[in-house]
Amino acid sequence: MKTPGDFGVGPELALVERRIREAIESEEPLLTEISEYVIASGGKRIRPTVTLLGFKAVGGTKFDRAIDMAAALELIHSATLVHDDINDGGTYRRGRLAAYRKYGIHEALVTGDFLFARAFGIGGKFDDRIVDLTARVSASLAEGEIRQKRHAGDVRIGREEYLNIVKRKTAMPISGGAQAGAMLGEGTAEEIDILGEYGLNLGITFQIVDDILDVVGDTAVLGKQPGMDVKEGNVTLLAIHALNNGSAIDRSELIRIIRKRQKDWGEVRTALRMIQESGAVDQAREDAREFAERARKALDAFPAVDARAHLRDLIDFVLSRQA
Amino acid sequence: MKTPGDFGVGPELALVERRIREAIESEEPLLTEISEYVIASGGKRIRPTVTLLGFKAVGGTKFDRAIDMAAALELIHSATLVHDDINDGGTYRRGRLAAYRKYGIHEALVTGDFLFARAFGIGGKFDDRIVDLTARVSASLAEGEIRQKRHAGDVRIGREEYLNIVKRKTAMPISGGAQAGAMLGEGTAEEIDILGEYGLNLGITFQIVDDILDVVGDTAVLGKQPGMDVKEGNVTLLAIHALNNGSAIDRSELIRIIRKRQKDWGEVRTALRMIQESGAVDQAREDAREFAERARKALDAFPAVDARAHLRDLIDFVLSRQA
Repeated sequence: MKTPGDFGVGPELALVERRIREAIESEEPLLTEISEYVIASGGKRIRPTVTLLGFKAVGGTKFDRAIDMAAALELIHSATLVHDDINDGGTYRRGRLAAYRKYGIHEALVTGDFLFARAFGIGGKFDDRIVDLTARVSASLAEGEIRQKRHAGDVRIGREEYLNIVKRKTAMPISGGAQAGAMLGEGTAEEIDILGEYGLNLGITFQIVDDILDVVGDTAVLGKQPGMDVKEGNVTLLAIHALNNGSAIDRSELIRIIRKRQKDWGEVRTALRMIQESGAVDQAREDAREFAERARKALDAFPAVDARAHLRDLIDFVLSRQA
Repeated sequence: MKTPGDFGVGPELALVERRIREAIESEEPLLTEISEYVIASGGKRIRPTVTLLGFKAVGGTKFDRAIDMAAALELIHSATLVHDDINDGGTYRRGRLAAYRKYGIHEALVTGDFLFARAFGIGGKFDDRIVDLTARVSASLAEGEIRQKRHAGDVRIGREEYLNIVKRKTAMPISGGAQAGAMLGEGTAEEIDILGEYGLNLGITFQIVDDILDVVGDTAVLGKQPGMDVKEGNVTLLAIHALNNGSAIDRSELIRIIRKRQKDWGEVRTALRMIQESGAVDQAREDAREFAERARKALDAFPAVDARAHLRDLIDFVLSRQA
């Protein structure tokens, strides 16, 4: 399995980590500790990687500002993770207790705000175009959350609305990172657009794989119990497929479980089994490959530089990840 | 009773309100609605007023940027209000249900993040010095929250530590607003310092008055039940005085109540009565007047302009407010 360091920006990613650690220093050791904990649980560093690769792909060389930007985006991501965990009621993240379970809701909530403040301190130094982009991405995250909640248990949700939510919650932040990298590297408007398109499709791929893992993932590898989407009433692409493949399964029972407000884990497991039996997993894998292909295609218009190969490798990484 | 419009910046404050309403527009009507609700419950607009007056005091004339800055600071303030209410478990704010009670914790939490994002979109456009100041103030708010929670029920807390918390949670944001206004108005370094000193002492005055109102305030005027500080275990200046005036009251009973984790409202009322009987209210009023006097003194070094009179009026307003 590849690690983020394998995409040709390993040393720069290490500097992003260092920048993040600097940023979370606080006179309150507990804030630093919780921030540290959240960031360590944050995972794959897709956003920083894509920012650095976007920067490199347009010929950027002096990495300092791209590293700052990548750090700011990862801080925003971490802030939303810690708040999302509170909202979703998830117990684990990447094999560790969710921050709010370990430190308390109050402390986790405040840590999220602290991470936003630090991200602002770094990200606010960039020019207006990048500030706008970052602010839009941050607002989109909130809009995606509300949109998802608004559709909780809504079994009539279609692929289009699913993608609307995914764009806001996952794909736009990744796309924004790629674009910001390209802006900092002084890419042309066309290059920025291409990287935006690449990032958007990479982000959708990422989320579909996430949804698949939430159905078939292994608790030990995943670091959390699968089934959170069913539990929360999030109608993912897999649930949509399963509901459309009604003949193979007891559709009305699946609908009943998805709609139910308080589900027990037995019901969640039943729903997961039905989704699997419906053939939805293979269909979602096909969807993920489709969006991965779109991301790949976006790169075709791109000058053949080293970074293009790495951007392609990143697609494969996202597509084949198991956690 | 004066209203914020009486400080010579009424028309500009109206423009701040308009700027805030623009900023909270969202494709998700619910986010706009909750933001609107929170902002309408936000109250006295001390931060925008002080920003505009700081700007005017150094001779600033083109108000556009000061209005933007004031809007950004009020958005940050609103974001922390909605999150604080979740943390404190308060039911009412200014006579209305707290946002999280009306709309749900998930929705309120996300709205806070949304407000941060919008504040960032406005505040990130300013030069690095102001971005730094704003980011520092935002981080301070989080640090103050954690610090306060760390000392919850800590009856050995003294006046100094109380002031440390108050500075972070209330005074630095107000001071930061005054400084940012002065920076935008191109004040001298000395003027910026003076306004910072003024804002800090005004902010402490504001908080002490808040603490007094939480002991003696009228529920109808206050728009919420007094006693929240006792309930939360926040050892305010009044509690500190009461504990030091031990001879007049049953000190160990007060300590017991403050320290107790789950208090019923009967116990809270008992503690409030003891604090009142101890003479702490008058002492705190004396403290408030002392810090108001410091704020006033800071202005003495200031050229005699119109805005100085308004800055003075604002002190009186803060000192005499009943809600």
